[in-house]
Amino acid sequence: MSASGKPIVVLTGGTGGAKFVAGLAAAMPPKEITCIVNTGDDLDWWGLRVCPDLDSITYVLSGRLSRERGWGVEGDTFLCRDAMKAYGAPAWFSVGDKDVALHLLRTQLLRGGKSLSEATAEITTRLGADACILPMSNSPVETRVGTPEGELGFEEYFVGRRFQVPVEYVRFQGSESARPAPGVLDAIASAEAIVIAPSNPVTSIGPILAVPGIREALAHTGAPVIAISPLVGKAAVSGPAAALMAASGLPVSLFGIAKAYHEFMDVLIADYADAADASVLVQSGVRVHTTDIIMRNDEDKKRLGLLTILMVEQYSRLRTADARQATAVTQGTQS
Amino acid sequence: MSASGKPIVVLTGGTGGAKFVAGLAAAMPPKEITCIVNTGDDLDWWGLRVCPDLDSITYVLSGRLSRERGWGVEGDTFLCRDAMKAYGAPAWFSVGDKDVALHLLRTQLLRGGKSLSEATAEITTRLGADACILPMSNSPVETRVGTPEGELGFEEYFVGRRFQVPVEYVRFQGSESARPAPGVLDAIASAEAIVIAPSNPVTSIGPILAVPGIREALAHTGAPVIAISPLVGKAAVSGPAAALMAASGLPVSLFGIAKAYHEFMDVLIADYADAADASVLVQSGVRVHTTDIIMRNDEDKKRLGLLTILMVEQYSRLRTADARQATAVTQGTQS
Repeated sequence: MSASGKPIVVLTGGTGGAKFVAGLAAAMPPKEITCIVNTGDDLDWWGLRVCPDLDSITYVLSGRLSRERGWGVEGDTFLCRDAMKAYGAPAWFSVGDKDVALHLLRTQLLRGGKSLSEATAEITTRLGADACILPMSNSPVETRVGTPEGELGFEEYFVGRRFQVPVEYVRFQGSESARPAPGVLDAIASAEAIVIAPSNPVTSIGPILAVPGIREALAHTGAPVIAISPLVGKAAVSGPAAALMAASGLPVSLFGIAKAYHEFMDVLIADYADAADASVLVQSGVRVHTTDIIMRNDEDKKRLGLLTILMVEQYSRLRTADARQATAVTQGTQS
Repeated sequence: MSASGKPIVVLTGGTGGAKFVAGLAAAMPPKEITCIVNTGDDLDWWGLRVCPDLDSITYVLSGRLSRERGWGVEGDTFLCRDAMKAYGAPAWFSVGDKDVALHLLRTQLLRGGKSLSEATAEITTRLGADACILPMSNSPVETRVGTPEGELGFEEYFVGRRFQVPVEYVRFQGSESARPAPGVLDAIASAEAIVIAPSNPVTSIGPILAVPGIREALAHTGAPVIAISPLVGKAAVSGPAAALMAASGLPVSLFGIAKAYHEFMDVLIADYADAADASVLVQSGVRVHTTDIIMRNDEDKKRLGLLTILMVEQYSRLRTADARQATAVTQGTQS
């Protein structure tokens, strides 16, 4: 828990990120959490604006996320999707019947002239999620995956092709001219700590970092930046992180995570299975904490959340000590 | 069945109309049926374009209409609506989960630039309805119901208030400048017969007749116009027809039906329960056929469909005989 009352800011996307946010919200008051969420996966589907990562975080924080699937709403059904399929509409992207309601609501808010930030704030309130949920940007930034069959949207690659096609490159269309959504830079600047969720560094965190200004804000914030590895034993816990990292020139190991975040990362929480790589990193001056990071159940999630809070407190104390020492040195010089 | 191959054209709206079309389609090849459908009840709901009467006819003709409810899809569920309600969105108008699919499809087609006619034709094909379904107009015509609490849209009155508020007047907003949808006037002009379904004459058939050109086309078509009364014993079988007729200056009896349709009606099919009124009408020169018009089940619907076809054949023969006689008279005069 933040003694300062300042929020813990989580950069998140994907199922790993949603699981982590669930654990963190179980370990501290959710209203002291601010999530900055990837919107690179957003898509227009059946004429509705669907924001998979914002949806998952909203469902997690309002107690609705399907634990079984890791996306969508607990206990949902798929009659609308089945009807769409019967009517010859695309149905490769599954949207549940309860889930449709959220997309209808967002689409109406956006059509009514609200920004994605404003729509997200209203949805957060309406669904009773007791945290601050910010899209990374109100500008459209679209994660595009280059494959031998052409460039695909992220969900076309991830869900449509079940990430079984080779990846040649990843790019974030629209990122050059995107701006951070209102509140994003302030949240980073005034956080108790920044936590990078155990999300895919390329397609979940990458789009956030591709929004001009966010990487710089992370590098200049006074708060510690704690990243949690999404890898266990040089492999993704689930999903296509390995293929996407390789295609983006990142080693599929802690070295790749450290490379992706090196400009701003103060400490990396990694799995025991990567202890060997961790010690190499430590020797090169990177702070790494190894633990069991796999989140199999609610208890695992909460444990990782609690550990993250401990790390936040430890690094805050460390910074305070550093600051005192720096002050002492300065005073020594001046006297 | 039409010996000529010309279609039987049905003017329809509401649950009575949908039931009748089900029966007619059971009694003759559906592809020889053209439905001209009321769109005065259409509304924007959760950002989707919903056309209750077009939906019902499409569901009837593709074998999907819920027999139990008389609207929506057989075996549908309401998880999306319940979620919308939980999220504080209006939920007084019930849309089922399968039903949402049709509205999504239509909304996408309309947003993509298609007219309601074109969208309806595509939906008819996609759902496998083997008949021609025409909206009365592509122009927005909105049935407005004047009540002591102000003017309401039809569904606000019918579903939202369960037609329990007094009706002061009914008007069809936009009708003055509306035009019949493509195919409507041609269908009326070239029909084997026109059948006015046992629909509410004010809010189901009234909007169709309010579209400039349609009333005139009915008055001038060479085809017989057969109306089926929606009343049994001076009362509506279901719904608010009585209150709406009274508010529109129509007696709630066969006289009101005859008054509503007098400019073009050749024959009225009425219930035995209204036999006394029927004989008064007959004495004043109106052709009335009395039968059992209540449609309790599929058998009743088919029976009314078969009877309608018999009436069509009878009046076609009558017209042929009249024409022969007219020719003979003309020839007699000329010789």
